Amino acid sequence: MTASVSVVEPDITKLLDHLARQPALARRLGGARDQWSAREIGDGNVNLVFAVHGPAGAVCVKQAPPYVRAAGPSWPLTPQRVLFEHRALVEHRRHAGPYVPEPLHVDPKEHLLTVEYLEGHTVMRGGLTAGACYPHFAGQVARYLARTLFFTSDLALPAGRKRELVSLFEANTAMCQIMEDMVFTEVFLPHPRNRWTSPELDEDVERLQRDTELKLAVSRLKQRYLTSRDALLHGDLHTGSIMVSEDSLGVIDQEFACYGPMGFDLGTLLAHLLIAYFAAGARGPDRAGQQGWLLSTVEQVWDGFRTHFTELWRHHADGDGYPPALFTGAATAALEAERQRYLDELFTETLGFCGAEIIRRVVGFARPADFTTVTDPAHRAAAERRSLALARALTAAPTAYRSAADLTAAARNS
Amino acid sequence: MTASVSVVEPDITKLLDHLARQPALARRLGGARDQWSAREIGDGNVNLVFAVHGPAGAVCVKQAPPYVRAAGPSWPLTPQRVLFEHRALVEHRRHAGPYVPEPLHVDPKEHLLTVEYLEGHTVMRGGLTAGACYPHFAGQVARYLARTLFFTSDLALPAGRKRELVSLFEANTAMCQIMEDMVFTEVFLPHPRNRWTSPELDEDVERLQRDTELKLAVSRLKQRYLTSRDALLHGDLHTGSIMVSEDSLGVIDQEFACYGPMGFDLGTLLAHLLIAYFAAGARGPDRAGQQGWLLSTVEQVWDGFRTHFTELWRHHADGDGYPPALFTGAATAALEAERQRYLDELFTETLGFCGAEIIRRVVGFARPADFTTVTDPAHRAAAERRSLALARALTAAPTAYRSAADLTAAARNS
Ligand SMILES: Nc1ncnc2c1ncn2[C@@H]1O[C@H](COP(=O)(O)OP(=O)(O)OP(=O)(O)O)[C@@H](O)[C@H]1O
Ligand SMILES: Nc1ncnc2c1ncn2[C@@H]1O[C@H](COP(=O)(O)OP(=O)(O)OP(=O)(O)O)[C@@H](O)[C@H]1O
Ligand SMILES: [Mg+2]
Ligand SMILES: [Mg+2]
Repeated sequence: MTASVSVVEPDITKLLDHLARQPALARRLGGARDQWSAREIGDGNVNLVFAVHGPAGAVCVKQAPPYVRAAGPSWPLTPQRVLFEHRALVEHRRHAGPYVPEPLHVDPKEHLLTVEYLEGHTVMRGGLTAGACYPHFAGQVARYLARTLFFTSDLALPAGRKRELVSLFEANTAMCQIMEDMVFTEVFLPHPRNRWTSPELDEDVERLQRDTELKLAVSRLKQRYLTSRDALLHGDLHTGSIMVSEDSLGVIDQEFACYGPMGFDLGTLLAHLLIAYFAAGARGPDRAGQQGWLLSTVEQVWDGFRTHFTELWRHHADGDGYPPALFTGAATAALEAERQRYLDELFTETLGFCGAEIIRRVVGFARPADFTTVTDPAHRAAAERRSLALARALTAAPTAYRSAADLTAAARNS
Repeated sequence: MTASVSVVEPDITKLLDHLARQPALARRLGGARDQWSAREIGDGNVNLVFAVHGPAGAVCVKQAPPYVRAAGPSWPLTPQRVLFEHRALVEHRRHAGPYVPEPLHVDPKEHLLTVEYLEGHTVMRGGLTAGACYPHFAGQVARYLARTLFFTSDLALPAGRKRELVSLFEANTAMCQIMEDMVFTEVFLPHPRNRWTSPELDEDVERLQRDTELKLAVSRLKQRYLTSRDALLHGDLHTGSIMVSEDSLGVIDQEFACYGPMGFDLGTLLAHLLIAYFAAGARGPDRAGQQGWLLSTVEQVWDGFRTHFTELWRHHADGDGYPPALFTGAATAALEAERQRYLDELFTETLGFCGAEIIRRVVGFARPADFTTVTDPAHRAAAERRSLALARALTAAPTAYRSAADLTAAARNS
């Protein structure tokens, strides 16, 4: 028995003991301890995740081993990550309650995080891969993004409170390092972790790694990720971090949370919607309807975000940024123009991060199921090549796109 | 006896007791405790500062009361500020040793900071006001700026170490708040702390406070100050924070240190050189030589900074930003062009902060001696009005200036 197997073997008894010791959790499950049943549901690579059901209710428990679960002890990773996930849940739920599962308990010694179990929800990426559309998704996620980003920014928070939060999340450096390496660096070098559809994309990857203009644009984005402290990000907002049901949405897996550029969360989400779009194209003509829905969702996510964010700024500018007292009377129109300029710049930044995320998902370590489940390599490679072409254009020349409609037109023509 | 007088009365006995308790400090002073003499030398508004001399040497001790010294207990301010000053001295001295006094001891309970006494140095603002020129200044301060800013940035530090420093300095929020209020906000509103040469500048101030374009530009700079974590700043780099002798330079008073935009330190310093230039003009034609020296110093500070910073980036890029491994062979030229683009942008940002600093020093709470010692109000107002005109242009339209020579030409024509 290897070390990694011995730890992946979940210790259910210990887990139930832990829950039984917390009166609030025990009450939530109801009944007696021997009426509770736990089952590993983690499809993820990083942690162990359990659903625990009792007579009265259910909870979800995440356990962070001191390494990457899929790799075992050979890839150590701080188990403190659950503390940051917990704190991000607390902060984001304050502002976007309906879209963030309730954090119930965190044990900093055992590195166990217990959150509301999202009954009847499935992971969005799985649904998309199977061909589903989610009509309420765009509206809900646009609100989630606008509220989490706005209310943790200097537009909403007094500087002292915001600096406190920055300070706290700055310590999530090991998780940030993963993004710094995987999104912005490794993919652009020959690196043992990289993989792609080979030999079909070999030349594309070689070209990418010689593309100096692109590498400069990506390095500028990395610099933004390293230096900007705009808002408390989810930090890994792909469609595998979103659970959906018929009419509701829950954002999970905040372990990469940090203060950073707003465009990072926005760009990551758009990237994965576009990945789903290109992957659907590889599955054949019966996916045309889903493809149309995906592109209109891309537009609605950005446009909805923009509308909500602008509204929040108009009516909840309680932070130290852009003091409203300076822009009264006739100057309110100028401030409104500045809001639109701010959002135009944010759109440009979003497109840059979107392209970088697409690229690292085609060429890097963490390839998404949308693509990997396309079994025909020629079809897969064709879809991935279209993604890369769009991504390259978005990252190297983001100002060519003025609106979300420009973006979806480019996706259609890619 | 009022509360404020009773505390400003320095408790020399307690101070010498403190020094006697620290063997390293006692050794530095030499001899016996009764051979030591302490004298208050603080010309500042915020703290009590003492020079203590003994038979073998001297130290400088800064004591932070829990309020602004000049205002008394009616204006409370965290005495923790000496801890940040101490830590900034440690970090900056690591990289710019010759220009930063050695921190010797900090007492976090008594809020006492002991540093190397800069023997034979005077505060630069005083020298400038009296008409002095400092031929070595530009070269020295350019090196100081390039090294402190570069080596605390993501260009030089691994992200983990840099995030640790950001986290630490984030707690200096009370001092940052003073800048957020005084530099970027109060001056642009009717505020009880504002003062200016009245009635001469009454209309100028009114116009300034109605200048929506300027207020937007300043708010954008405030947003940079609030959100950017580029480098560990001095945070208040005016000519009163610089001590000079014939051939050396020491930067003091790091109590506003924080991670922020590099242009803030650069712009503040240029602002005070320009203030000295305009004030000298108000003192009569015999100051023409000093005025010429001041403008050539402005150019040499920026150009020297730019040269040093570029050199450091070429040869000491040990941080996570712009990974050198991505730009080898033919791509090194592209990276060099990116460095120049980076510095062009930094110049633009610097001019913006420079203008904002000039404005708040003409209209705000902390007016500099350069101006206040010009006794004739008409002459003073004329010089201040020229400063304001230049400052307004720099902040509202910084991209109109491509080089330091453009800047000094504008100063001459203002
Ligand atoms: N609150 C919840 N309610 C229901 N199911 C959940 C909940 N949280 C997580 N899950 C399930 O557990 C899976 C793994 O969760 P999560 O993504 O948080 O773990 P992870 O190990 O960090 O994964 P990753 O490899 O994406 O980092 C999810 O994909 C989902 O199926
Ligand atoms: N290391 C030193 N060596 C010699 N003199 C010093 C030293 N540090 C400070 N001084 C003297 O003490 C004065 C006050 O120091 P400093 O500016 O640090 O105090 P402060 O109360 O914070 O002032 P401010 O009002 O500028 O914030 C300086 O202007 C200088 O004259
Ligand atoms: Mg995860
Ligand atoms: Mg001071």
